[in-house]
Amino acid sequence: MRRGSSIRRAAVWACAFAWAACAAAQSPALASWNDGEARTRILEFVRAVTDKSGKDYVAPGDRIAVFDNDGTLWAEQPLYFQALFMLDQVKAAAPRHPEWKDNAAFKALAAQDKAALSAMGQKPVLELLGVANSGMTVGEYDATIRNWLATARHPKYQRPYTDLVYLPMQELLAWLRLNGFSTFIVSGGSAEFMRPWAEKAYGIPPEQVVGSQQEVKFEMKDGKPVLTRQSQFAFIDDGPGKPVGIYRNIGKRPIAAFGNSDGDLQMLQVTTAGEGRRLALIVHHDDAAREYAYDRKSNIGKLDQALDAAPANHWIVVSMKKDWKKVFAFQQ
Amino acid sequence: MRRGSSIRRAAVWACAFAWAACAAAQSPALASWNDGEARTRILEFVRAVTDKSGKDYVAPGDRIAVFDNDGTLWAEQPLYFQALFMLDQVKAAAPRHPEWKDNAAFKALAAQDKAALSAMGQKPVLELLGVANSGMTVGEYDATIRNWLATARHPKYQRPYTDLVYLPMQELLAWLRLNGFSTFIVSGGSAEFMRPWAEKAYGIPPEQVVGSQQEVKFEMKDGKPVLTRQSQFAFIDDGPGKPVGIYRNIGKRPIAAFGNSDGDLQMLQVTTAGEGRRLALIVHHDDAAREYAYDRKSNIGKLDQALDAAPANHWIVVSMKKDWKKVFAFQQ
Repeated sequence: MRRGSSIRRAAVWACAFAWAACAAAQSPALASWNDGEARTRILEFVRAVTDKSGKDYVAPGDRIAVFDNDGTLWAEQPLYFQALFMLDQVKAAAPRHPEWKDNAAFKALAAQDKAALSAMGQKPVLELLGVANSGMTVGEYDATIRNWLATARHPKYQRPYTDLVYLPMQELLAWLRLNGFSTFIVSGGSAEFMRPWAEKAYGIPPEQVVGSQQEVKFEMKDGKPVLTRQSQFAFIDDGPGKPVGIYRNIGKRPIAAFGNSDGDLQMLQVTTAGEGRRLALIVHHDDAAREYAYDRKSNIGKLDQALDAAPANHWIVVSMKKDWKKVFAFQQ
Repeated sequence: MRRGSSIRRAAVWACAFAWAACAAAQSPALASWNDGEARTRILEFVRAVTDKSGKDYVAPGDRIAVFDNDGTLWAEQPLYFQALFMLDQVKAAAPRHPEWKDNAAFKALAAQDKAALSAMGQKPVLELLGVANSGMTVGEYDATIRNWLATARHPKYQRPYTDLVYLPMQELLAWLRLNGFSTFIVSGGSAEFMRPWAEKAYGIPPEQVVGSQQEVKFEMKDGKPVLTRQSQFAFIDDGPGKPVGIYRNIGKRPIAAFGNSDGDLQMLQVTTAGEGRRLALIVHHDDAAREYAYDRKSNIGKLDQALDAAPANHWIVVSMKKDWKKVFAFQQ
């Protein structure tokens, strides 16, 4: 009782300063989550680590929560949205690269020849993507990303990709921040692709977005200092790379981690290996009607080892179908 | 007048929530700075970007200030303190490396043979440092750093290295944060060497410390997920690397930058190349009596190109001798 009233008082204060937090504060917490084990365990965890008189109390500065992005905070089918964007840049760059007419990867992509693409493996495609997505300044690339996001439409929903963020996860992010957490994205995708919209969609500012890194190089160009994009990757923030990204960019062990695939396994392991109360959660895509259903056999967002590891580690497995009242805000 | 009273109101609020800000709030801002151009320009910049009705207003989320560490926030003579620490690790590791008795760099270091060290260049020494400072988990290394900081003493001052932070810069950090800035360290040193003490010394938490990066690798060790340190460097956050580190870890162009050497040149350039009001400042070490005097010809913290670039770019050059009432808190 006392706790509830202090949360409400905190909510009123939060509203006075940040209207974004008010939706979460004035309606019940996690309103789009059905009552059930997942919602109960999240709320209980947050209560426990914020209860100053309890044994599980964690100081606000150590309330670090990390979220995978693709498949955890927004959709990732039929292909990672950043991959769709980068492929579009291959098309856009083709007129400047006449030599690509003899490039096997380019020809297979242009012909949508899945058999040929599968046979050649990822490397030639990644090289092509690297070339098409480099050479420009980071400012120019940012403008290209923003333009693509404003105009491209998802093939299934026929909506901007940024509409495909999960409402229950937006509520979870807001609830954690209202309770003094810092919320970070730790994604296999690149920070530059998330930063333009992550603050509006998730309330997560650029400095709290950790991702894979393409090389960038400092140069003076027309007397102005700029960073230009290089074609090589400097760091892959996926799988065993995620704990490395967390160490480099955050420097603290998270107390809560949220993922959906085997690419998040090590991040969940590192989080729950810490001392004290921990929360780890896997979003399980089992909702073909409202979104997609896939796990162990999917090429995108494969969930196999992490699903097997969940029970023994007490990781919550969220059923999108059963645990979420809504998937996207635009759905009835 | 109105502005002054609103700052005082803000200060009272800040005191209610964070006692650390109170010293700055209740005494005049930048109390250890002498009246003069540097202090005046800093205060005027902060006033301008926080004045909602003014043309130079910057929203709090974009009030990003970046600080070099060595020579800007704390001392760096007679050698970067992290280098002294890493050299001590060579000594500590020697019993486990009998093969070093034939290593030229090790022999020259052990004999303090400056001529031999100078003749062989940095590479063999850096390789030795890499080996001596790798192989352990990041947790074990953190404990070694903390132990060293607690016991090692600076050769000139005979005090813990963490006493050698600049009081006027501590006040500047506090003043910026009181005015809604986010303050980041962007250092040529490694984040892991700064994070254990930067929060206490500067009020800067681990996630706002950007630095050079030694490779770390995720491994399972006795059933526990750990990160182990590798001997190679992954990223050098110095000179042209600093704008890269800022782009990767912050993702916004700073509006204020503080440095002391040519290693900060590109960071200052990128900061002041942005549109709108900007502040850049160089700490000039011209105080042999209270600290050290060095610039164009120093091996450590060489300040040459950046000093030449300062006037045309309107960068403030701070004279430690004339602009600072005190250098260190422990001095009279």
